[in-house]
Amino acid sequence: MDILLYSPEDQDDLASGLAQALPEATIHVWREPASTGASGEVALPPCDYAVLWAPPASLFDNQDRLKAIFALGAGVDSLMRCPGLPAEVPVIRIEDAGMADQMIEYALYAALQRLRRFDQYRRFSAEGNWQPLSFTARKDVRVGILGLGELGRRVAGALASFGFSVSAWSRSEKQADGILCRHGPDGLDAVLAASDVLVVLLPLTDATRGLLDHRALSLLSEGACLVNLARGPLIVDADLLALLESGHIGYAFLDVFSVEPLPPGHPYWRHPRVCVTPHIAAVIPPSESVAQISGKIRALEAGNKVSGVVERGKGY
Amino acid sequence: MDILLYSPEDQDDLASGLAQALPEATIHVWREPASTGASGEVALPPCDYAVLWAPPASLFDNQDRLKAIFALGAGVDSLMRCPGLPAEVPVIRIEDAGMADQMIEYALYAALQRLRRFDQYRRFSAEGNWQPLSFTARKDVRVGILGLGELGRRVAGALASFGFSVSAWSRSEKQADGILCRHGPDGLDAVLAASDVLVVLLPLTDATRGLLDHRALSLLSEGACLVNLARGPLIVDADLLALLESGHIGYAFLDVFSVEPLPPGHPYWRHPRVCVTPHIAAVIPPSESVAQISGKIRALEAGNKVSGVVERGKGY
Repeated sequence: MDILLYSPEDQDDLASGLAQALPEATIHVWREPASTGASGEVALPPCDYAVLWAPPASLFDNQDRLKAIFALGAGVDSLMRCPGLPAEVPVIRIEDAGMADQMIEYALYAALQRLRRFDQYRRFSAEGNWQPLSFTARKDVRVGILGLGELGRRVAGALASFGFSVSAWSRSEKQADGILCRHGPDGLDAVLAASDVLVVLLPLTDATRGLLDHRALSLLSEGACLVNLARGPLIVDADLLALLESGHIGYAFLDVFSVEPLPPGHPYWRHPRVCVTPHIAAVIPPSESVAQISGKIRALEAGNKVSGVVERGKGY
Repeated sequence: MDILLYSPEDQDDLASGLAQALPEATIHVWREPASTGASGEVALPPCDYAVLWAPPASLFDNQDRLKAIFALGAGVDSLMRCPGLPAEVPVIRIEDAGMADQMIEYALYAALQRLRRFDQYRRFSAEGNWQPLSFTARKDVRVGILGLGELGRRVAGALASFGFSVSAWSRSEKQADGILCRHGPDGLDAVLAASDVLVVLLPLTDATRGLLDHRALSLLSEGACLVNLARGPLIVDADLLALLESGHIGYAFLDVFSVEPLPPGHPYWRHPRVCVTPHIAAVIPPSESVAQISGKIRALEAGNKVSGVVERGKGY
């Protein structure tokens, strides 16, 4: 069995992990032609499986035997846009692998900040201002979750269990215990209008790009906290900045950006009401990726179905 | 039945609430003599019960019939120090009344900040610095809880349930599920030395005043987060400031202070690694106090025992 591997991060750990988990396989690490010197192209054999993150289009040249492509993450938007991606080969994403727990930590921190007004108290603290704010009960903080995939569902459940009032939106109709679930365009507006904290866990597709524009973000409650844990282009940055400026958005936790790393001088940097985190909301240890992918390769080789297969039409 | 009421906060709500909950009682609100005009003293009859917060010593003049004194809070240190306090009358404190849930929110926010390094990312954010930090699992963040009274026990349990590694210290030996419990002087040092986050929920007594001095705080792990939700004088402020300066203490959430409000110009104000909150970690809605106190008055009148009676010798 031949496995093609390409990952800008953790490539060596992934290569050795896969070699250990699948001793019958040969791992072929794809490298940029430039890095191999003047001779140019590296001849890799056609492989059975590809394990990838952010691949260059030319990686798929010559790969006419792939049985499945494993994306090294949950969001597959960049892979879906890769021009060389074979149309008929199943794309399988990483599922959970500890990501949901990390998303819960991040979203819970943001929701607690809003509940207990820690951002306001930090400002008061910097001003020398002793000013108790009125008590708010957990149930009176309304958290909206956009996206009810595996991660959205877990985050919604955790925040509801803690006592926040949670509603959630997904493209198609879904249900979740203890969560007010809505769908479709009207459902989106209803969730936005009932959110003091908005946690974004949507896939990036043609249908969701720019979804959170001035109109949508203006529906949030006055002073709302926005938490983007999904993909940068879901938000229209200029609109968010204008609403932060007006105070309608009280605080934003941003983990993802249209360009990453976030360029120097971008107005999100140094903004007093923005916490930029460098795409760390949920990291997957290479060992988790290896365990999940090697397990699925074994299942596929045994003729079984696996979960996490991307619906190419929907793009996630 | 006559009830003496004195509270610098919420006095009117408490008076009307008690009157409604105990229609057979007459509520006598004690006021500073100065506020009654030139005639001076207000003659209040000897009462059956007193409901108090931070009373002046003269309040107890003439009160020779009290069956119990209810403190309008969980920490009774200031009442215990009141010179006029009758020695033989039981003092009963407020128990929980929603305080534990609020303490959990505060402590969980602080522990999540440490786990996910949000304070560091806020600094990076203000510097325009895109720098992912290494992943930490919940179980690898060690939270120490000082004090295993009702509040300490609840906070310890919630943080352990969330997945943090929790140890706790109390003066006398105690046990709690899922918590490594220690006691005595050696136990204190062991808990401090095994804490990345320290949550202080101790009563203030002669034995605990200044407990967290330079020696004790130096035992915390490098860069630890200190969270004081109990009483200001438990900490030696100059020692904490020196350890914040050296970086040994990475961050401090301080809700309580030796002098409150924290005086203008105090070095805690404006300190980049200190979040001052104005004694709001746990507030008790007057309705909760009224429900608890009126219930206990009924129990005492019926000849039953009640919980929350302060041990005068221990001071809590």
